[in-house]
Amino acid sequence: MGNTLGEVLRLTTFGESHGAAMGGVLDGMPAGVEIDAERVQAAMQRRRPGQSAITTQRKEADKVELLSGIFEGKTLGTPIGFVIRNEDQKSGDYSEMQQVYRPSHADYTYDKKYGVRDVRGGGRSSARETANWVAAGALTAQLLPEVSVHAFVSSVGNIFVNSPYEKMDFSLIDSNIVRCPMPEIAEEMIEAIEVAKKQGDTLGGTVTCVLRNVPAGLGEPVFGKLHARLAHAMMSINAVKGFEYGSGFCGAQMRGSEHNDRFNTDFSTQSNLSGGIQGGISNGMDIYFRVAFKPVATLMQPQNTVSKDGESAVLQPKGRHDPCVVPRAVPIVEAMSSLVLGDLYLQQRMQGMG
Amino acid sequence: MGNTLGEVLRLTTFGESHGAAMGGVLDGMPAGVEIDAERVQAAMQRRRPGQSAITTQRKEADKVELLSGIFEGKTLGTPIGFVIRNEDQKSGDYSEMQQVYRPSHADYTYDKKYGVRDVRGGGRSSARETANWVAAGALTAQLLPEVSVHAFVSSVGNIFVNSPYEKMDFSLIDSNIVRCPMPEIAEEMIEAIEVAKKQGDTLGGTVTCVLRNVPAGLGEPVFGKLHARLAHAMMSINAVKGFEYGSGFCGAQMRGSEHNDRFNTDFSTQSNLSGGIQGGISNGMDIYFRVAFKPVATLMQPQNTVSKDGESAVLQPKGRHDPCVVPRAVPIVEAMSSLVLGDLYLQQRMQGMG
Amino acid sequence: MGNTLGEVLRLTTFGESHGAAMGGVLDGMPAGVEIDAERVQAAMQRRRPGQSAITTQRKEADKVELLSGIFEGKTLGTPIGFVIRNEDQKSGDYSEMQQVYRPSHADYTYDKKYGVRDVRGGGRSSARETANWVAAGALTAQLLPEVSVHAFVSSVGNIFVNSPYEKMDFSLIDSNIVRCPMPEIAEEMIEAIEVAKKQGDTLGGTVTCVLRNVPAGLGEPVFGKLHARLAHAMMSINAVKGFEYGSGFCGAQMRGSEHNDRFNTDFSTQSNLSGGIQGGISNGMDIYFRVAFKPVATLMQPQNTVSKDGESAVLQPKGRHDPCVVPRAVPIVEAMSSLVLGDLYLQQRMQGMG
Amino acid sequence: MGNTLGEVLRLTTFGESHGAAMGGVLDGMPAGVEIDAERVQAAMQRRRPGQSAITTQRKEADKVELLSGIFEGKTLGTPIGFVIRNEDQKSGDYSEMQQVYRPSHADYTYDKKYGVRDVRGGGRSSARETANWVAAGALTAQLLPEVSVHAFVSSVGNIFVNSPYEKMDFSLIDSNIVRCPMPEIAEEMIEAIEVAKKQGDTLGGTVTCVLRNVPAGLGEPVFGKLHARLAHAMMSINAVKGFEYGSGFCGAQMRGSEHNDRFNTDFSTQSNLSGGIQGGISNGMDIYFRVAFKPVATLMQPQNTVSKDGESAVLQPKGRHDPCVVPRAVPIVEAMSSLVLGDLYLQQRMQGMG
Repeated sequence: MGNTLGEVLRLTTFGESHGAAMGGVLDGMPAGVEIDAERVQAAMQRRRPGQSAITTQRKEADKVELLSGIFEGKTLGTPIGFVIRNEDQKSGDYSEMQQVYRPSHADYTYDKKYGVRDVRGGGRSSARETANWVAAGALTAQLLPEVSVHAFVSSVGNIFVNSPYEKMDFSLIDSNIVRCPMPEIAEEMIEAIEVAKKQGDTLGGTVTCVLRNVPAGLGEPVFGKLHARLAHAMMSINAVKGFEYGSGFCGAQMRGSEHNDRFNTDFSTQSNLSGGIQGGISNGMDIYFRVAFKPVATLMQPQNTVSKDGESAVLQPKGRHDPCVVPRAVPIVEAMSSLVLGDLYLQQRMQGMG
Repeated sequence: MGNTLGEVLRLTTFGESHGAAMGGVLDGMPAGVEIDAERVQAAMQRRRPGQSAITTQRKEADKVELLSGIFEGKTLGTPIGFVIRNEDQKSGDYSEMQQVYRPSHADYTYDKKYGVRDVRGGGRSSARETANWVAAGALTAQLLPEVSVHAFVSSVGNIFVNSPYEKMDFSLIDSNIVRCPMPEIAEEMIEAIEVAKKQGDTLGGTVTCVLRNVPAGLGEPVFGKLHARLAHAMMSINAVKGFEYGSGFCGAQMRGSEHNDRFNTDFSTQSNLSGGIQGGISNGMDIYFRVAFKPVATLMQPQNTVSKDGESAVLQPKGRHDPCVVPRAVPIVEAMSSLVLGDLYLQQRMQGMG
Repeated sequence: MGNTLGEVLRLTTFGESHGAAMGGVLDGMPAGVEIDAERVQAAMQRRRPGQSAITTQRKEADKVELLSGIFEGKTLGTPIGFVIRNEDQKSGDYSEMQQVYRPSHADYTYDKKYGVRDVRGGGRSSARETANWVAAGALTAQLLPEVSVHAFVSSVGNIFVNSPYEKMDFSLIDSNIVRCPMPEIAEEMIEAIEVAKKQGDTLGGTVTCVLRNVPAGLGEPVFGKLHARLAHAMMSINAVKGFEYGSGFCGAQMRGSEHNDRFNTDFSTQSNLSGGIQGGISNGMDIYFRVAFKPVATLMQPQNTVSKDGESAVLQPKGRHDPCVVPRAVPIVEAMSSLVLGDLYLQQRMQGMG
Repeated sequence: MGNTLGEVLRLTTFGESHGAAMGGVLDGMPAGVEIDAERVQAAMQRRRPGQSAITTQRKEADKVELLSGIFEGKTLGTPIGFVIRNEDQKSGDYSEMQQVYRPSHADYTYDKKYGVRDVRGGGRSSARETANWVAAGALTAQLLPEVSVHAFVSSVGNIFVNSPYEKMDFSLIDSNIVRCPMPEIAEEMIEAIEVAKKQGDTLGGTVTCVLRNVPAGLGEPVFGKLHARLAHAMMSINAVKGFEYGSGFCGAQMRGSEHNDRFNTDFSTQSNLSGGIQGGISNGMDIYFRVAFKPVATLMQPQNTVSKDGESAVLQPKGRHDPCVVPRAVPIVEAMSSLVLGDLYLQQRMQGMG
C-alpha cells in the first residue's frame, strides 16, 4: 500500500536511487485523453538535478520512457507504465554509508523497519523517487486541461514573499532559478542559498501553491476531503514538515465573525479564507496552500554521528546535494496537486452529474 | 472510498447528524485483544456535547453499542460493528436550512457535489461524525497498550501555552474544561471563550498531540509515511486548517546545521526536531504534532448570506453550537492518532520481524 | 479487507450468527437514486429462514433497519448503514460446540487462524452473514433498474432442469418452494429434499443466474473482469464449490470453430457461448452462469469427529438446519450479482462516455 | 483497480501486446527474502511462445528485467519493478484488424468500453499480459519455499486424465510438451491438438492444480476466502470459463453424509472433498482445483464476421496462435496460485500468531 497514491487514479511507483531505474504505473486514466509527451519531459526538466548553480550537480537526463497505455497520442484507458533510468549512480564505493547512520536521514529507521537497506545511497527514501511523481503528475495534468496549477517559492530561510498571491504574476515564477515570482525577493533568496552553500550548510523554505478553475464538487467526505488528500500528498514529499490551506495556522487565531466567507449571489465568496474548500469539497474559488520544507540534512561539513554498531563516528562531507530544496520542490508540489485533483475528479464522475 | 480510513485496520463509518444513528465497522483488529468497553465509553464522554459551559448544549448520551467482533471480552479477529443512536435531533423545522446556505459551511458544496442534501442539519458534514472516530480510536488504543497518546489544547485565539510539552504534566489536561495542562493559561483560554460566546462569536485554536513509546519502524514508504498519514487523519477533522510535526513551519526557517538531530550511541537523538519520524518511519523518539482549528462557522449573531436560488438572505442565529471546538477536539485528535498508529503497526507485522 | 466487497461501490459487513446483530455499510451509492425500502425487505423474506418446510426453522424476522444515507426516499451519496438484529439466537448452551469440531465446518480452521472463536454458533462463518448481502444487493439493484437479475435452482442432487434457460418462464421461479421455474422438475426436487431430510441427510445442488439488459462495456481489464468478479462473489457464498459462465466446463470440450459466437450486423451474436462477456467486458448479450453448492454439512444423524484436544468424539444431531440450501441461495446469488454489476457500472462511469 | 491483483502483496501490471513492453510492480514483498532471478526466468521459459510444435510461433525472449526492490540477492521490502520487452511485434500492417471485429475476441467490447483500442493486436486483452503474472508469481513463490505448487493439463478436448491426482507423478509434468503427467494420455492429447491444428481449428481443455504444504489458517472471511480468491485469479486468465475446487460440481450431486470429511485425531481428514479449505480458510490438507479453458478463438480458417461499421466481412486466417492454450496455461495457473497464497500468507501475519 505504501507505494500507491490515489484511489481510482492510482500511481504505483518503484525504484532505489542507486538501482537500475525509477518508474511506475499510472492506472485509471480514462481513454481518449490527448497526451503530449513533451509536456511530461518539460516537467521533468524543472525537477531535474543539475539545472542551476543552487541545485545538486548529480547528472541525470531524467528521460521518461512511456511504455504502454498511449496509442497514437491518446490514452487507451489502460495503465501507463513508465521507466526513468538512473544514470549517474556512482555507487562504486559505499563502504562508509554501510557503516554510519547519517543524522536526520532515514538510514536508521529503514534498518529498524526492514532489517536490510540499499546502502548504495538513499535507496527508496531518496528524493529521486519524486521524478516518478513529476512524470505521473504531468500526465494527469492533461486530463484536466482547464485547471491551472501554479506553485512557487514563498520563503527561503527567513526571507518571505511580502505580497498576497493574488497580486503576483505567475509567469515570472520560472524567470529566476529559485522560482519565486517576485524578482527582488528572489534575488535575496538566491543570495541566501549561495551563502549557506559556501558554508557547507543548507536552508529550509516554503512553497505555496494555487489551483485555479477547479470545478466545484471535488472531494469525498469524510476521509477523502480535498484538503486532507492534498495534505497527505504534500506531506509525502521528502523534507516536508507542515501543511496549511486557506487561512491555515493564522485562521486558528481568528474569530468566526472575521473568518466566515460571505457569499455573493453567484455563490462565489467575498473573501476566501476557506481556501476554496468547504466541508472537504471544492467550491469553485481558488484553492491555495502552503508547504514547509526543512533544511536539507546532508551538509558539506563534518558531522558527529554513530555507526550501525553504536560507535561514535564522524561523517565526512561528500557527494552532491541541494543546499535548499524548495526551487526543485516547485514542480513536485504541482505534480502532487494534479494527481490528487485527477483522482477526485474521476471519483466525482461516479455521481453521474457531469 | 471517502468513508473508510486505514488500509489494513480499516474504519468505515456512516451517519447523518439528524438521521437515526451514527456508526461504523472497524475491520482488521487481530484476534485476542482484550477490550474494555468502559474505556470506549469514557472516551465518548470526553467528546460528548453538553459536557461543560463552553460546549454545545445538544444532548446526546453517545452510548456506543458494540454489535460484533468481541466475545467474552476479547476480539475475535472479525469486524467490530457499532452504532451510536442520535437522540436530540430536533429535526422538526428545517425549512430555513433548506433554503439558505450558511457561510463557511458545506451546504453549498454538498449541493454542488450531490445535487441533494440532508437539510435537517449538517448531515454527513457534521462534526457529529467524529463520535464514530472516537469510538473506533478507543477500541484501537487497546491494541497498543504500551503507546501513550496525549493531546491538549495549545492555543485558543491568541492565547498560547508558553512552555515546551516536555515540561508539562499531562495528568492536568483534564483538570480544566478547556483541556490545557497549564492551569493558568487554561483560565485565560476559558475566559476568552466565554467572552466570545457572550458576543455570539467563536474562536479558533490549536491542539498539540504527543505520542510516546511508539516502536521504531512504523510508517510505510513512500505514500504511507507516518507523518503523512497523521496529516491526512488530522486534516479530516472538521474545521482543521493546518498540520505540522516536529519543527514544523519553524523548521523551514532553520539551517541544516541547527536542524539535524545528532544520534546518541543508543540511537536516540540529542534533539528531536524530526518529531520522532525520519523518512516517514518512527525512530522511537516522541512523535509530536500540532493541529490548527479555525473558529466555528456557526455564529449566534445574524449573518448576511444567499439562498439556494441566489437571493440575498439573512441567517438568524439559532440552535446549539460550540463557541470553540478545541476542547472537544482533544479526544478526537487522540482517536485519530490511535487509528493511524494501529494501521501502521499491523502493516509492520507483515515484515515478520516481531 | 476480508469484510469488504467491491471497489467503488463497497459493502463492508459485520456480525456473528449468535451475536447482537448483523449489519453493514454500503458506501459509494451515488446521490439521487430512488430507494424503495419495501423491495429490500421483500428480498430479505426470500432468504429468511423458516419460510417453508424445506428450510431451517430458525426464526428471524430479518428486519433491515436503514440508518443513514437515504433521505426522503432518495440516496444522499453518503454511506448507507444498516443493522439486522439477531433474535432467535438460542446461545444458552454451547458447551458441546466449544469442545467438538464439526466435520466440514469452519470450527477447526477458525481456531487455527485466530486462536479464538465465537463458540455460540457458526459465528462469522455462518451463512447468516448472507442476510447482509441480500439487504445490500436489494439496495444496489435499485441503482440499475433496467437490468434484470434472475436466479433459479437448476439442480438438486441428481435432478436437473432439462431445458435451456431461454425456454423457461422466470415468473414461475417463486411459484414453488424450491425456486425452480420448471414446475414438474420442482416437484421432484422437493420430494428429494424431503426424503433426505427424513433420513437426517442433506443434498447439494446448483443455481443458475441470468443477467439481462446489462449495458455493454462493464468489466475492468485485467483483474476486474466481469466474470472473475462474479466468480469471486459467488465463491464467497457459503457451501459453493464451483462456478462456470457461458459454455463453462462444457466449453473446454469444444473446438474453436464450434465455440466462436458469430456477429450479427447489429453486433449481437448468433450464439452466446461467451455468456455475454468477451475479454472480461459485457457485450450486451445475456450473461449467465452456474454455481455449485455442496450438501449442507450439518446432519441430523450422529457423526464421528474429534474434540478440540484431539480426542475422538461423537457429534449428536441438534439444532435447526437446511436440508438443502439452494432454494434460499437463489436471492443470495441475485444479490451478489447486483453488487458486482453496480460496482462495475460505477467504475465504467469514470470513462466519461455516458 | 482493474490492473492490480492482491491486497497486501499487490501486483500492478501494464502493457499492450504490440506496445514497447509489458511490466509491472510487485509491492508488499517483505524484506530479506532470498530471490533467485534464474527461477524467475525459468518460469518464463515455460510460458514463452514458440517453445514447442503445439504452441504459437511468435518469438519472444521474454527476458524479465528486475529494476528495483532487490539488492545483493535479497528483497529490500520495497516494490519490485520489472519490465519485459516486446520484440516480435510485427505491428506494421494492422489495417484489417482496425476495421473488422474478430469473433469471440475483445475487439468489440474494448471499443464499447473505451471508445478507442490499440488495433495493432490484442492490446491489453492479449494473453501476453500473463507474462507479467508468471514473472511476479515466480518471485512470490520464493516467499513461500515450503509450499509446493503443481499444475498440469487434466484434459484436452474430450481426452481426460483417468486417475486421481494423488496417484500421479508430478515430476513427469514437464516430460512432454502438453504438460500432462500421464505419458500415454499426453500422447493422445498431443495428437488431438495436432489434428485440430492441421484443420485450422483449436481445442479447449482443463488444468488441475494442487497446492501442498499450505499452512492452516490462510484465507480471510468473508470476502477474502481462499477459494474465492483462487477463483478470481484463475478466472482472470484469458479463455477461462469455469473453476471448481475440492468436490466441485460433482459435490453438488452428493449427500452430506457422503461429502463430509471426517477428522483424524491429528486434525487431518480421512477424505478431502473440502479441497483443503473450510469456511474459506486452509486446513493444512492438499488444496486442489480445476480450471476450464475454452478453445482459442483465433482460427486458421476464414470466418464470417462484421466490420466496425456493421458491414458483413470475412476474417482471413493470419498470424501465429496456439491451437490449444492449456500447455502454456500450466505455469500461469501456478503463478496465480502463488500470488494468491502470498497475499493471504502476509495477511495472516497480521494476526501475530507466527
